[in-house]
Amino acid sequence: MPHRIPPRTGVAFELPKGALLSVIDPSGEQVADLLAFRRDDVREVLSSGRTLDYAGRIYLTTGHKLYSNRSNILLEIVHDDVGRHDFLLTPCSSDTFRIIYGDDDPHHGCFGNLASALAPYGVTPDDIPVAFNCFMNVPIDPVTGALRVDPPLSVAGDRIVFRAEDDLVIGLTACSAPQSNNGSFKPIDYEIACL
Amino acid sequence: MPHRIPPRTGVAFELPKGALLSVIDPSGEQVADLLAFRRDDVREVLSSGRTLDYAGRIYLTTGHKLYSNRSNILLEIVHDDVGRHDFLLTPCSSDTFRIIYGDDDPHHGCFGNLASALAPYGVTPDDIPVAFNCFMNVPIDPVTGALRVDPPLSVAGDRIVFRAEDDLVIGLTACSAPQSNNGSFKPIDYEIACL
Repeated sequence: MPHRIPPRTGVAFELPKGALLSVIDPSGEQVADLLAFRRDDVREVLSSGRTLDYAGRIYLTTGHKLYSNRSNILLEIVHDDVGRHDFLLTPCSSDTFRIIYGDDDPHHGCFGNLASALAPYGVTPDDIPVAFNCFMNVPIDPVTGALRVDPPLSVAGDRIVFRAEDDLVIGLTACSAPQSNNGSFKPIDYEIACL
Repeated sequence: MPHRIPPRTGVAFELPKGALLSVIDPSGEQVADLLAFRRDDVREVLSSGRTLDYAGRIYLTTGHKLYSNRSNILLEIVHDDVGRHDFLLTPCSSDTFRIIYGDDDPHHGCFGNLASALAPYGVTPDDIPVAFNCFMNVPIDPVTGALRVDPPLSVAGDRIVFRAEDDLVIGLTACSAPQSNNGSFKPIDYEIACL
């Protein structure tokens, strides 16, 4: 049975080298922000900049490797039902809701959920980088560079599967931003298979 | 007179709140990787993810603000002769030259230059994020997300000017990667004006 992450919450857990992590969208059109840190030294963390540079593209799918800030491979995508994810934007936060949505009493967002869940592993809020945002659909205008946050292309039951290339600490959320999830908040499921 | 950064080197310096920093391409087609940290706490640093999210675009120019990982404005672009810069990719490093170029004895790159120049300010290599890559020309295919590193659009004498919105430590390079600079290594100039 998969584990369930309730709407607008997040979790952290260890993922041993070689294990497979499935991130599943049980309802469709829901984003999951994913972070990965090296378990034995959490100052080594997922790096969007290294990964996009080595992949030569901003949209990643099966076969692409997610690199750390020290240019080591942390995860490889080994299966992907959707083919559209984001690796440009940081987890939504109270500042996101204040600045983009104009909320007076903003939710703590994926950033707050990740910070709380990762604190026991020694990760501080300042250590939280751009996340790999599973199922997040961010088209780019190639002339102006303008970006939109469109509804995810995922339908109920779609999954993306990662293989751990080192012993990791993972942070994972059911995203809290209305715009990312077509206006409603839904759960995210995940499964770990140790081969 | 501007300060000159020789080819394949980098510098770090303090930039007080309100000061204007001009980054000048004296020869044309040369990239300068720029980092900014809050002087009084260098754990607060330029964030591509926050900035692109708040700007709603990946290509930034005059009027756009560069945000920190804590969602504070560190710099504002107040003048821009070129209109095409990159904020997706990390500074080139020995790993870049090993992985992308296949070099057996790789140069330390902008990453090594920034790490050395910023060390006296308490910045560690792990603290170096995606840089704002002045004049770097990275077009995106909107369907596949494939990116190219094309020659910069800058011609000799072109500049981009930033205003500091806090007391900052700046890291700045004359980029070391052949692909970014149309195959040759040239200097970068910079000027600071305190109003």
